Amino acid sequence: MSPLTQGESVSEYVSRSLEIIDKSGLEYRLNPMGTVIEGPWEEVLGVVKACWERMKEDCDRVSTVIKIDYRKGKTGRLTSKVASVEKTLGRKLKT
Amino acid sequence: MSPLTQGESVSEYVSRSLEIIDKSGLEYRLNPMGTVIEGPWEEVLGVVKACWERMKEDCDRVSTVIKIDYRKGKTGRLTSKVASVEKTLGRKLKT
Amino acid sequence: MSPLTQGESVSEYVSRSLEIIDKSGLEYRLNPMGTVIEGPWEEVLGVVKACWERMKEDCDRVSTVIKIDYRKGKTGRLTSKVASVEKTLGRKLKT
Amino acid sequence: MSPLTQGESVSEYVSRSLEIIDKSGLEYRLNPMGTVIEGPWEEVLGVVKACWERMKEDCDRVSTVIKIDYRKGKTGRLTSKVASVEKTLGRKLKT
Repeated sequence: MSPLTQGESVSEYVSRSLEIIDKSGLEYRLNPMGTVIEGPWEEVLGVVKACWERMKEDCDRVSTVIKIDYRKGKTGRLTSKVASVEKTLGRKLKT
Repeated sequence: MSPLTQGESVSEYVSRSLEIIDKSGLEYRLNPMGTVIEGPWEEVLGVVKACWERMKEDCDRVSTVIKIDYRKGKTGRLTSKVASVEKTLGRKLKT
Repeated sequence: MSPLTQGESVSEYVSRSLEIIDKSGLEYRLNPMGTVIEGPWEEVLGVVKACWERMKEDCDRVSTVIKIDYRKGKTGRLTSKVASVEKTLGRKLKT
Repeated sequence: MSPLTQGESVSEYVSRSLEIIDKSGLEYRLNPMGTVIEGPWEEVLGVVKACWERMKEDCDRVSTVIKIDYRKGKTGRLTSKVASVEKTLGRKLKT
């Protein structure tokens, strides 16, 4: 999620989103191209909406990309998805 | 990048992509929802294409999502983008 | 939004989503790589969730990509965004 | 593909991309949230790169999202993917 109206550096605005995500209580992982959040649809989309509402307060155009990977009955996937790839390759990867 | 034709678990196929990425020599970070690779367009898209070609060998339908964040004159952003958010918030985040 | 567990052709599952979207009353445009829906966050994400809930009923893994383009005070953008590009180029494009 | 450094309206910059795409000779469909292009990887990514190179000339930060749906042996999918959904539902949809 980033504004199109605030110039080249958007770190200040992304930081406000991470403040909301970090305080939400949901499990998350920040990476250089986004943040992965795990939890039930309502809770995760609720946090995404809170970030969006905050950004809209002073940014007149906001672009958001959301990818959702639902898998029945599975939890703890922030860890297990990476671990299963490392296990398959038999070595640690750059994470 | 994942196949639509190989059933619920795609870890085996994602691992093959990470094998290619890890051996490419480009800087990358694996996360639960994708892999962030840094480098010149030709080299990064070359690696993505190699992963795609490998997956096509035995998967008849492959879905790929690529997000590209170009910023003039900036390198080392796999580290700096996360660091600038942590600096703004004055604390380490979950990465 | 498509299932990873139902084999190569997912048209049947995508059609169920379009049934929900078409009956939602929201403005939308179907295209070969997705459906663009216009409206307030709650209504649009409500329809997306309904599609997701329907797909989860019989698909154990579902992949979803959502792109959101918010622009303050603007509506009717399903038409105006394309029209403004055609106006700039001074000709009709393939839509 | 849009610039983060040129303010709220990016229509002028998107139009330059459509100029390149329209003149490329590849089949494409413009929609309110992007452009779907059909063809071999090298040709399609070549056109995407040309758009990106053009935008980089005067935009210091450019955000790009590419979704690729590969299906073995299938062509003419700009038309067939939409048609198969309409056929399944037995009616024309908004496209």
